[in-house]
Amino acid sequence: MHLHLREGAMMERVTPLTAEHFAGAIIMPNLVPPVDNLARLQTYRDEINAAKGAHVFDPLMMLFFRNYTKAELLAAREHIFGIKLYPAGATTNSEAGVKELDAVEDTFALMEELGIPLMIHGETHGFVMDREKEFLASYAHLAEKFPKLKITMEHITTRDAVELLDQYENLHATVTLHHLIITLDDVAGGLLNPHLFCKPIAKRPEDREALLAAALQAHPKLMFGSDSAPHPISKKECCGCAAGLFTAPVCLPTLVELFEQHDALHNLQAFVSGNAQRIHNFTPPAKTVKLEKRGMLVPERYGDVVPYRAGETIPWAVTSIS
Amino acid sequence: MHLHLREGAMMERVTPLTAEHFAGAIIMPNLVPPVDNLARLQTYRDEINAAKGAHVFDPLMMLFFRNYTKAELLAAREHIFGIKLYPAGATTNSEAGVKELDAVEDTFALMEELGIPLMIHGETHGFVMDREKEFLASYAHLAEKFPKLKITMEHITTRDAVELLDQYENLHATVTLHHLIITLDDVAGGLLNPHLFCKPIAKRPEDREALLAAALQAHPKLMFGSDSAPHPISKKECCGCAAGLFTAPVCLPTLVELFEQHDALHNLQAFVSGNAQRIHNFTPPAKTVKLEKRGMLVPERYGDVVPYRAGETIPWAVTSIS
Repeated sequence: MHLHLREGAMMERVTPLTAEHFAGAIIMPNLVPPVDNLARLQTYRDEINAAKGAHVFDPLMMLFFRNYTKAELLAAREHIFGIKLYPAGATTNSEAGVKELDAVEDTFALMEELGIPLMIHGETHGFVMDREKEFLASYAHLAEKFPKLKITMEHITTRDAVELLDQYENLHATVTLHHLIITLDDVAGGLLNPHLFCKPIAKRPEDREALLAAALQAHPKLMFGSDSAPHPISKKECCGCAAGLFTAPVCLPTLVELFEQHDALHNLQAFVSGNAQRIHNFTPPAKTVKLEKRGMLVPERYGDVVPYRAGETIPWAVTSIS
Repeated sequence: MHLHLREGAMMERVTPLTAEHFAGAIIMPNLVPPVDNLARLQTYRDEINAAKGAHVFDPLMMLFFRNYTKAELLAAREHIFGIKLYPAGATTNSEAGVKELDAVEDTFALMEELGIPLMIHGETHGFVMDREKEFLASYAHLAEKFPKLKITMEHITTRDAVELLDQYENLHATVTLHHLIITLDDVAGGLLNPHLFCKPIAKRPEDREALLAAALQAHPKLMFGSDSAPHPISKKECCGCAAGLFTAPVCLPTLVELFEQHDALHNLQAFVSGNAQRIHNFTPPAKTVKLEKRGMLVPERYGDVVPYRAGETIPWAVTSIS
């Protein structure tokens, strides 16, 4: 429920890697320029559908949040899954994002009226370890002020966000694979590892534990969203490394490994797919993915993109898709 | 009071850059193999003295901590400034360090008896942001159990460490230039910046403020120690970047800039030199360094080492040394 496919050659390379294993994914609109009008969104969707090849896969399209008119939203409604809000400057290609939440409440009210979900990259511009926690008050404010607006806290990384989930009926969350596994220790505790640098940054051990516990029990308001985000190696192993992990090809094998380790395989389907279908009341195309415990050697590179767990052997591998 | 000069070609390149501006520096012994015997220490000192050229500069030599006999310490005493303790695996080349502090207390007792100062890299193996704070109990234990042992908390990075300084008479501290200026935000808040990655990692804004406040007032138990640590660029801009900033050539200009900004220039001499002379009761060779406000353009590289503030212009420059 949270995926970056980029554009052009990168999109063509990475789209099949998600489209193979998943029946659908919410496609992030933080391109340059952003996907903030229907014509651009439809062109982008067509490009993704061309890039996915023969795989059964529904790109769930998102508009980039700006102040929209009611006419724009009415025209867009049947073509979009939701609208994604970025605070200006919070992450990759978010310069066109929102500077003041108070100034865009008319659009929130329209989205509530028209039943359009709002997804938010919830970080302030504060100290890097505090940015999500500082944003929680804004989530609470919006959830309370717009009680019929379906709000998703995107890629949550803290125990505090998990705890907020239960406070407001209209508040949901996605969580990535990597935030269930890594902490800041893995990024900067030994040698510095740019391949594990992401936004929001991985937090403390107690945060990771709370996220993992919620995922393993398939907390009914929590949805898997890989946030798989490819960057060429030249933007990762350098001075000024970009934020994002490319997890798409290893998501399912790693999730099966993780849920098996914690005797929670019975909750995996709900976490990966069922919760999202119920929360957003949609049905993706039918797809059965079978994994077996026979080992998957993760390639060192996909083109010029280094995947998460590059060079590792994951016990589980996808062996058939139907 | 805390400097890395390395060995071989790197030592030959970086030694003059400190020896020019400073009359003396404590030389870290975490080489491979470590400087843990008098013969190796004397050879290393001779190499440094050869590399410093015509500059007036005293290398203040340190032994790498291990269990030493009284005979070894008696023989070493007049040749060393102190002994540096690393917890095993805490930082670069510390694999030969101490696994259990309790197991080496005989050596602490001998050092106390013989008046040999103990310098400690005080970090546990816990979560990266907590490692120094978790070690403070060990500092307190040692300071209390060996009240005549002169202990330095090396390169402190937290408000808690600053506060501990006042609790034990025999406890002192060094602080680097960069920990007075940067926080984790500068390392990982925007793009990831490997050139600002160091150990201990830069902490929170309130930590930086406490360190800076103590430095600006020339807290009598706090000494400047640059911890300048050169790594070739191939070990910084890569996957698995090494920890350390090369600050030697910009220390004095940056300190003058910083203390001037805070109207604290009258405390700079004590912070950089006076406190250390009083605490350790020694007199370095006489040296007068004059700085003028006429701009220093920091080179992009010194050989294959990228310095702190590479490419920036610092308002102050060293203009004469006598």
